[in-house]
Amino acid sequence: MTAMRRTLGVCYYPEHWPEELWAEDARRMAETGLTWVRIGEFAWSRIEPEPDQLDWGWLDRAIETLGAAGLKVVLGTPTATPPRWMLNRHPDMLALDSEGRPRKFGSRRHYCFSHAGYLEECRRIVTELAHRYGRNPYVAAWQADNEYGCHDTVISYSDAARRAFRDWLRAQFPAVNGNGGDIGALNRAWGNVFWSMDYADFDDIDLPNLTVTEPNPAHSLAFRRFSSAQVVRFNRAQADIIRAHSDAPIAHNYMGRVTEFDHFDLGADLDIASWDSYPLGFLEDRVGASDADQRHFARQGDPDFQAFHHDLYRAVGRGRWWIMEQQPGPVNWAPYNPAPLPGMVRLWTWEAFAHGAEAVCYFRWRQAPFAQEQMHAGLLRPDSAEAPGLAEARQVAGELADAPGVDPEQAPVALIFDYDADWAWKVQPHGKGLSYFSLVFDHYRALRRAGLSVDILPPSARDFSGYRAVFAPGLIHMAADLKRALAESGAEIVIGPRSGARDRNFSIPVPLPPSLPGLDVTVSRVESLRPDMPVPVEGGGTVTGYREELAGSADTVFADYSGAPVAVRQGRLTYMGGWGDAELLDRLVVGIGLRSQLPILQLPLGVRVRDTAIERFWFNHNSCPVETPAGRLPAAGVLRVPR
Amino acid sequence: MTAMRRTLGVCYYPEHWPEELWAEDARRMAETGLTWVRIGEFAWSRIEPEPDQLDWGWLDRAIETLGAAGLKVVLGTPTATPPRWMLNRHPDMLALDSEGRPRKFGSRRHYCFSHAGYLEECRRIVTELAHRYGRNPYVAAWQADNEYGCHDTVISYSDAARRAFRDWLRAQFPAVNGNGGDIGALNRAWGNVFWSMDYADFDDIDLPNLTVTEPNPAHSLAFRRFSSAQVVRFNRAQADIIRAHSDAPIAHNYMGRVTEFDHFDLGADLDIASWDSYPLGFLEDRVGASDADQRHFARQGDPDFQAFHHDLYRAVGRGRWWIMEQQPGPVNWAPYNPAPLPGMVRLWTWEAFAHGAEAVCYFRWRQAPFAQEQMHAGLLRPDSAEAPGLAEARQVAGELADAPGVDPEQAPVALIFDYDADWAWKVQPHGKGLSYFSLVFDHYRALRRAGLSVDILPPSARDFSGYRAVFAPGLIHMAADLKRALAESGAEIVIGPRSGARDRNFSIPVPLPPSLPGLDVTVSRVESLRPDMPVPVEGGGTVTGYREELAGSADTVFADYSGAPVAVRQGRLTYMGGWGDAELLDRLVVGIGLRSQLPILQLPLGVRVRDTAIERFWFNHNSCPVETPAGRLPAAGVLRVPR
Amino acid sequence: MTAMRRTLGVCYYPEHWPEELWAEDARRMAETGLTWVRIGEFAWSRIEPEPDQLDWGWLDRAIETLGAAGLKVVLGTPTATPPRWMLNRHPDMLALDSEGRPRKFGSRRHYCFSHAGYLEECRRIVTELAHRYGRNPYVAAWQADNEYGCHDTVISYSDAARRAFRDWLRAQFPAVNGNGGDIGALNRAWGNVFWSMDYADFDDIDLPNLTVTEPNPAHSLAFRRFSSAQVVRFNRAQADIIRAHSDAPIAHNYMGRVTEFDHFDLGADLDIASWDSYPLGFLEDRVGASDADQRHFARQGDPDFQAFHHDLYRAVGRGRWWIMEQQPGPVNWAPYNPAPLPGMVRLWTWEAFAHGAEAVCYFRWRQAPFAQEQMHAGLLRPDSAEAPGLAEARQVAGELADAPGVDPEQAPVALIFDYDADWAWKVQPHGKGLSYFSLVFDHYRALRRAGLSVDILPPSARDFSGYRAVFAPGLIHMAADLKRALAESGAEIVIGPRSGARDRNFSIPVPLPPSLPGLDVTVSRVESLRPDMPVPVEGGGTVTGYREELAGSADTVFADYSGAPVAVRQGRLTYMGGWGDAELLDRLVVGIGLRSQLPILQLPLGVRVRDTAIERFWFNHNSCPVETPAGRLPAAGVLRVPR
Repeated sequence: MTAMRRTLGVCYYPEHWPEELWAEDARRMAETGLTWVRIGEFAWSRIEPEPDQLDWGWLDRAIETLGAAGLKVVLGTPTATPPRWMLNRHPDMLALDSEGRPRKFGSRRHYCFSHAGYLEECRRIVTELAHRYGRNPYVAAWQADNEYGCHDTVISYSDAARRAFRDWLRAQFPAVNGNGGDIGALNRAWGNVFWSMDYADFDDIDLPNLTVTEPNPAHSLAFRRFSSAQVVRFNRAQADIIRAHSDAPIAHNYMGRVTEFDHFDLGADLDIASWDSYPLGFLEDRVGASDADQRHFARQGDPDFQAFHHDLYRAVGRGRWWIMEQQPGPVNWAPYNPAPLPGMVRLWTWEAFAHGAEAVCYFRWRQAPFAQEQMHAGLLRPDSAEAPGLAEARQVAGELADAPGVDPEQAPVALIFDYDADWAWKVQPHGKGLSYFSLVFDHYRALRRAGLSVDILPPSARDFSGYRAVFAPGLIHMAADLKRALAESGAEIVIGPRSGARDRNFSIPVPLPPSLPGLDVTVSRVESLRPDMPVPVEGGGTVTGYREELAGSADTVFADYSGAPVAVRQGRLTYMGGWGDAELLDRLVVGIGLRSQLPILQLPLGVRVRDTAIERFWFNHNSCPVETPAGRLPAAGVLRVPR
Repeated sequence: MTAMRRTLGVCYYPEHWPEELWAEDARRMAETGLTWVRIGEFAWSRIEPEPDQLDWGWLDRAIETLGAAGLKVVLGTPTATPPRWMLNRHPDMLALDSEGRPRKFGSRRHYCFSHAGYLEECRRIVTELAHRYGRNPYVAAWQADNEYGCHDTVISYSDAARRAFRDWLRAQFPAVNGNGGDIGALNRAWGNVFWSMDYADFDDIDLPNLTVTEPNPAHSLAFRRFSSAQVVRFNRAQADIIRAHSDAPIAHNYMGRVTEFDHFDLGADLDIASWDSYPLGFLEDRVGASDADQRHFARQGDPDFQAFHHDLYRAVGRGRWWIMEQQPGPVNWAPYNPAPLPGMVRLWTWEAFAHGAEAVCYFRWRQAPFAQEQMHAGLLRPDSAEAPGLAEARQVAGELADAPGVDPEQAPVALIFDYDADWAWKVQPHGKGLSYFSLVFDHYRALRRAGLSVDILPPSARDFSGYRAVFAPGLIHMAADLKRALAESGAEIVIGPRSGARDRNFSIPVPLPPSLPGLDVTVSRVESLRPDMPVPVEGGGTVTGYREELAGSADTVFADYSGAPVAVRQGRLTYMGGWGDAELLDRLVVGIGLRSQLPILQLPLGVRVRDTAIERFWFNHNSCPVETPAGRLPAAGVLRVPR
Repeated sequence: MTAMRRTLGVCYYPEHWPEELWAEDARRMAETGLTWVRIGEFAWSRIEPEPDQLDWGWLDRAIETLGAAGLKVVLGTPTATPPRWMLNRHPDMLALDSEGRPRKFGSRRHYCFSHAGYLEECRRIVTELAHRYGRNPYVAAWQADNEYGCHDTVISYSDAARRAFRDWLRAQFPAVNGNGGDIGALNRAWGNVFWSMDYADFDDIDLPNLTVTEPNPAHSLAFRRFSSAQVVRFNRAQADIIRAHSDAPIAHNYMGRVTEFDHFDLGADLDIASWDSYPLGFLEDRVGASDADQRHFARQGDPDFQAFHHDLYRAVGRGRWWIMEQQPGPVNWAPYNPAPLPGMVRLWTWEAFAHGAEAVCYFRWRQAPFAQEQMHAGLLRPDSAEAPGLAEARQVAGELADAPGVDPEQAPVALIFDYDADWAWKVQPHGKGLSYFSLVFDHYRALRRAGLSVDILPPSARDFSGYRAVFAPGLIHMAADLKRALAESGAEIVIGPRSGARDRNFSIPVPLPPSLPGLDVTVSRVESLRPDMPVPVEGGGTVTGYREELAGSADTVFADYSGAPVAVRQGRLTYMGGWGDAELLDRLVVGIGLRSQLPILQLPLGVRVRDTAIERFWFNHNSCPVETPAGRLPAAGVLRVPR
């Protein structure tokens, strides 16, 4: 397979602008060096202004105008923004929040994934759209809906969700005779004998909100799994229809750190994974960085957060992934919305390509003067003058002309990311603020500080050939064959804390965890710790927030000053019995690197590298120049060095 | 016009006390030197104990007793506290909060301004009251309702509000044929094409609460304008009735930093503006001072907050204004409720007079032993002994005997305050914690630190003659004729940041802001900043929280260390492209002062001056003496110096 | 009366485990030295799997198995966990929270105490249980329900509560003719004339939630008293039934720092008070310790919090009290859940015995692998291996063999604790964060730092003979005969701040407080203070948070640097006009100690003593050894010294 060409694109809303602007806009896009233009994903009220009255004219002309300028269209389905009249047809289609309040019309994503009537409406409009444009020569890709789960929209406590959850549970605990569900099996699996929570019928089961104190964690986890499955089902309905009408690839644009549904499961129905990358918004809103780092990187974004998602979506897309929306300037939605440091728009773009992106599309072409995102920068200002981001996009376009295509290579290190584990930790963090995402991300940061390129793998991975080391922290439920595959992989394996700590239905297994073949260690007790009481580890670093007591004959790798083991190892299997701070995780990575002949660097703050098959990229996320082995990196600098 | 006499008064609740106490209370009030006694504003349940059964006897006797002692009565309409039986008549009269919960009976202000039935009841009781007492010789002034908007009561999400909002919108976007509204015009004005938010009918429009993510800011701003208009309408109904029966002036007692309705609009229907001044409660609860200042001024109150409101209500009352409730000791409602430093009750009273108050009334005569405000000090203790505030009131009464009357003079500096702009910033602060009120107040503080007396002007002001400088920061929407009037005024004009940043319907205008005739500057990009990343300005001070990128040919006044302009000027027009800290605002004021021959002082912490036509007042808000050019000011001291 | 033997026990859930494990479990319990086994309190769904279908078989066998092993059974009534089918019978039995939301099925305590139908169901199941096991030779004690009030379940805003509250109020304000209530009396008592809050009928009175601003404090206090009375009524119904069928003593297991109902009132219907002691969970969740102390005692628990409750429940149980649930390892429910320092399980157990406990039962026998408390340690791990707590329990069992029995002695000092006062402070803290519980606890800490053993007394105490000193801070309402009894007691009496500050219906009394016979002091004004503005006291210490102005002829004990009195004394009566910090309270205790010949120690941080009739116990709550007058105390050490 030849390397795919790296391309740029932009998001555009012809319905927002006078039609006489379209041709000029298209010309300027093409001139800038853009290949893709995404349209249509919020336009339902203009495609179908009144129920069943479809108005295709403007969209036909928009696609024609853009295509005629040499652009390829990514056409979005408009299902994230049902028009107001849809509420008249389906007054109960709204999601309810955890306190039972409707999440009303007036912004976007105002629908419950479990609502059968709305799903049917989506099938109808997607069928119309796919039928009309499925063979349009300019429509070169599709996007289903927009940012599933954004604004906490995965989980709904509506009546529709309640009914669907009961049916989903029946299917999870089928009766032996195949007739409905086995409520006794559910009661046993969940331990409902505790606090007299036994159910006589699936229809007795309510959603796990507004309980007097916390609900059964098995109940909560099941509801999260169900909620994820509803999103997957919703998306699949659209993908199936589009595929029946079009050969163009189907994408969805995931949103950063939205973990409420399983992106791998949903990705199985896509051809391309894409995500929406807003480095500055994320740093303020969801990275969870320290105050000092938030200050230091305020105009650059976190140096690892985007990379993590790049690697994640490379896995979700089984190799094919894009940035569908790339921040081009200040955004509107974070607590604070600074302008990027000059050069960062270019850096972010190249960083995506270094991680294997096929395309990077900027959001959006022209800043809208109205409505919720009027303060969101575009490549153009509202008055059509060039905004600063445009020059950087143009520069990348020029650089791409001489650059090689997408040239992925298996990384030497793998890191498993499991949405189900994230839900389990959310259901039961055990200590305030403990989160699976953060645990995995802490490991990712340590690997990146060591200069390693990383592949993220789903928990369904069983073939680890080619990897020298595999990290799988915090996998609270581990399938038996995953344990076996890891133990037999030949790679250095690092698991823990909390690995295998629960069975599929959130019970503690006996024998106690981790119960990994070939590793004699038992977690005999666990504790969560105040942030101000880290446990120092001999040789440097601490365990912070979460700690396990380890018993067994495996060798001690790290110990606290009382000699109690913090990490143990047997053969190639390492178990971490606690949450290491950055220093301890660095020691862990260096140790594993030495054992597996990995080339370890010690990168300065904000400097990161990423290898493709033929090049090493250096990125400087600092606002000052930095000296590196590859030479001087200017502020916001990018270096490409042949390998 | 001769100077009006400065007078004192008190708030009194005859219905709270045995009738045999009234005459003695009245005698002591008169003896203390009080002129006014406000009564009646919470007495509906005693005036009309049962529906349509009016009991005037006690009120007749109370007015007679007070009047006979030489006191003038301010009679309040009791509409802020509908009796319990009113709920039986109008079960749906309660406001709903933003989460849809009723705001129930059991305290006060339990009504929705949009409820037609309750408005009719208010018309009925006010008619009865005005008819009975309109010509009573002792009733010398009226108060309509009490503290509109206190306890966040302006905005209601009730069905009544929803219906009224739709009608209000129809009137805002009238159909060309005059028949109802033009929904297309609304859709275009709000940019409802964004996210498919188009409406087919005004009856599709809901209130902007409980949306999945933020509603359209145009929608939110319209709802805030509507909510303000409902308060104005409610008040006007009362004023019209009173005026038909009485020649006594009509007041309303506004509450400090309640900005949810337009006080200028409402004030147009009043003869006197008044406000309720609780310096210590405000400092703890709503000034927004630093922790250090909250500690330093804990027993004195903020040195600028009351003065700001004095100047504001002088404008609202078109020259005529009172303090209707003056804190006389510790209050009950703030997070912490310290006792005032001895002397502060006198200082607060004189400060009001220095700013032009006609009357200062203390709240309240005797501390109530029961109910919500039992911990609120009065001039008397619950056992009728004198509380410390009484001696200070008596002292002021004595001092007034020799003092000149109210003698206002136009200040040399004007500051525009626009409620509509405050709503716009609330709808879209863009950066966490950014508020229009705080921006204007920061400018006011800087002017006061420079020893300047200030006139506050409404945004409807067009005649700026007599002012050497006019400050108008943050006016997010500026009418074209206001821009023109400012540009042509001959005064030094300071506007920005965010001036003219939106059109009337909250869209970004093209050409981009500020678009002020005679000033070549364009705000090409804006950003909000973390509080810990202030941008240093050459020469001193910083921009903090909010920053704009300025383009154009105007001269740079302030620049950051990269040379990028922070403020620019052309002729007499200055534009500030960011939120200056205290040091930068001091530099701005001093610079403008030099350009316009204003006499600039550098006042120490807590010391403030205020000029009338014939005197300069010095106030020491510190708990220690301070040396000033006018001499030594004791703690809580007041100096009056002839000019 | 001979000293009762000190015993150990454990909580056990046979319904959670295969029946074949029971006998072995029982054998191991007995072998460990345990006497008691508590069962049944969450087993309703297994006792009555379907409505009216009772399944006693398993419970018969469990009791037989445990009893046969030599254990005594404490049998719990299962009313804290109504089964799911109960909701079908009584859909409106759920409590509503203050925002009107139902508190749904899915955990525990999902019932409203005022629901008549559910109360009837409880009577039914308790009758069945008592009838079946009332004379069972192995059933040696009863527990009614479980942790009343845990998870904020005392107060409900349901329709059932509203109706019951109205009836309760009618009984509080009876009509003279005995026919219903006298609404005029209520209006007068509450001061409803304020803000026109008069009611025409008891059925006009709503629950005091969701009011526009704060409700009348008299209304709120009445609702809290009513809510407490409903719990007492609920419990009495069970106690009456059990007593009719059994001679075994009846207990309830109170939860730490649950003050929403009156434990003394409820305790009057019990034979034994017991409480559930979770020192580490409490320290993280509800002690209110400083960050430094939370860190220092993270693995030991607060050194006074458990002792306070021990002394409290000795009073509630009129001498007879147990620990029904003792933390044996890490728990699951606090923000952070560390493992105890080795030795602390033993220390906690001995501490309870030193304070007079008859029995200490550990919670629980084996860690449950499922449901909400799966992370709560037991004496056994989920795999039945011994957890660390078991060895400590076994050690105590061995030590008990040689130890004397329960040997209580009246303490030299008494401290009054009044639930009603706690509600009054909650209704009106006056300053943010001020709480009656904390005020009393601060005094308790000071007494303990001085090495004093303390008896806690209910506010109904009138006989203070035998006490050298009685402390009664913060008793906001004091009955006249309590005042008299204290004044005439002969002990040193310390009251204030806020003592006697309100009458029974929350009005300020005239003459002003404290109005104590024999003590000429009047609180002429009160203030609350920011935490950062403590008022220094001459000689050391400060008043922090709350301060009173004192007038009268009593001698000054403490004064601030302006000479204003902070505490005054006349004869043996001392009044504290403010909230002393630790240093000032130490000075107060030392002074009172000198006046009353109390032996005063100065105990180091974390070291505490407790005297019985024949022994002095020393406890070291530190993680390092400490030298004491009684010798070297190891970390987590316990010393018993004959007196």
